[in-house]
Amino acid sequence: METIRLQDIQEAALRLKPHVHRTPVLSSETLNLLCGRKLFFKAEHLQKTGSFKVRGAMNAALQLQAPRGLLTRSSGNHAQGVAFAARTLGLPCTVVMYEDASEVKKQAVRSYGATVVDAGVTHLNADQKVQELMDQTGFTFIHAYENLQVMAGQGTQALELIGQMEAPDAVLVAVGGGGMISGIATVLKSLWPDTQVIGVEPELGNDAQQSLRAGRRVSLAAPPETLADAVRPMSPGVLTFPVMQRLVDDILTVQEETILQAQHLMMRHLKQVVEPTAALPLAAVLEHFHLPERLALFVCGGNWLPE
Amino acid sequence: METIRLQDIQEAALRLKPHVHRTPVLSSETLNLLCGRKLFFKAEHLQKTGSFKVRGAMNAALQLQAPRGLLTRSSGNHAQGVAFAARTLGLPCTVVMYEDASEVKKQAVRSYGATVVDAGVTHLNADQKVQELMDQTGFTFIHAYENLQVMAGQGTQALELIGQMEAPDAVLVAVGGGGMISGIATVLKSLWPDTQVIGVEPELGNDAQQSLRAGRRVSLAAPPETLADAVRPMSPGVLTFPVMQRLVDDILTVQEETILQAQHLMMRHLKQVVEPTAALPLAAVLEHFHLPERLALFVCGGNWLPE
Repeated sequence: METIRLQDIQEAALRLKPHVHRTPVLSSETLNLLCGRKLFFKAEHLQKTGSFKVRGAMNAALQLQAPRGLLTRSSGNHAQGVAFAARTLGLPCTVVMYEDASEVKKQAVRSYGATVVDAGVTHLNADQKVQELMDQTGFTFIHAYENLQVMAGQGTQALELIGQMEAPDAVLVAVGGGGMISGIATVLKSLWPDTQVIGVEPELGNDAQQSLRAGRRVSLAAPPETLADAVRPMSPGVLTFPVMQRLVDDILTVQEETILQAQHLMMRHLKQVVEPTAALPLAAVLEHFHLPERLALFVCGGNWLPE
Repeated sequence: METIRLQDIQEAALRLKPHVHRTPVLSSETLNLLCGRKLFFKAEHLQKTGSFKVRGAMNAALQLQAPRGLLTRSSGNHAQGVAFAARTLGLPCTVVMYEDASEVKKQAVRSYGATVVDAGVTHLNADQKVQELMDQTGFTFIHAYENLQVMAGQGTQALELIGQMEAPDAVLVAVGGGGMISGIATVLKSLWPDTQVIGVEPELGNDAQQSLRAGRRVSLAAPPETLADAVRPMSPGVLTFPVMQRLVDDILTVQEETILQAQHLMMRHLKQVVEPTAALPLAAVLEHFHLPERLALFVCGGNWLPE
């Protein structure tokens, strides 16, 4: 099985440098007191497009040979990343999104000049829709996580973090398809070998936890009905799962109401607008008392508005 | 009339250095495109206590000789500043707040260990309540803006800004009692003499605009019913108004719906939680097309939550 190495991620970081922000690491004394921990938030909601996803999408797009256009399917943040990459490269872009995806995210995708195809799209027919569009347009499809260049791009946020703080006891990472955590784990298990890499899923969508326990990719029957709309893939990826098996120390789950509470605390004490999925790591801190003291939390995105 | 000089603010900055954050300057390419301007946001909502007010409160508190405790009245952010200063100095603190003041702000004041007196308190009886409490406790009263040390403290955010960017064409500052703008104008008219200093008020509470036009302090009949709850003083201060007359170039007003729209844009594109008052400067950019290109906007506070 082909996989990613630290060197792929280091090369991705050089490739991405002109195109993405070096995001800050935030903290709040009040939040530390409330949680009894030292928390460091890697603020990827302040990344271009409001999410780390632009790293992977851009890393893949920059390596294409004369593409006619870009095509993807996504719950939203990867869509924005691909749309942004297409605009940067002067390419047309079409994105297949579920009909019930976040309206904020759909609008953002359109704002980068991409076409959103969402009428009647569900998890049952999305792949078929993508295939039809590929045949019609000849655009290149960039998958949100079943793509080694995407996985490598996502890992660059961990490379940055290493230059921004002393090694924490553990890092907490939201898990959807596994692109983010496999990139991050590849970096950290090389450069911070004593740091635990812990994934976080909604209890309603614990496919990665089930898969790691079973030793094989377990699939949910349908996309989970969680507030965390960026982690709705029904199973870990073919490319990401072996990396998770090798490098991830544990997967924790959290309840929906804890996700809301964590999002609320991040607004109140960090003054940051984050989407529910980006609150998964803090939700894990609130629910799981065995976690060690110094924790780095990856804040995956901020594409959300109240009401 | 006694007033503040640049040197008072430079001394305040040294005094405050161990106690306050140097806040960042934020920007968003999308917001710049939308507004057709280059906007630089001085992020005082990321200051300790979630507002610049801690600067003035702390500067005053640090210069007291053996106080028995601290007392103030405030719509909320100054209250948090005084409560934080009291906790830092190990002093008891009592705060008189209007009964209908923001619950988020009342809770924050209590979280610093201060006592909130709010039962039945309105603008009609707040001063009397303060006098009673002063007589009972012997605590020292720190006014939110009728205090030269408070005004000097507020000016320190402008000193910081000078080290963080090239001089903009204009700065935009929310105006309540005038403590913030008088401190800021005192710094900027010395060090960035070509930069306009422009105040912003809700149209519903344009006492500073009326006062500058009339050449005397005009008072509203009651606290304005504006979303911008941090600018409800009914007239400019006795100490602040002469500074505003001398140094402020203009005062603009904005409508309530523009304040909401600006707050929304700051959440959406800067990913920052700001209170409505902190959106006044951006609201002015949205409503007043004659403003020049490079603008610095002071973001006064982030003590707000959705719902």
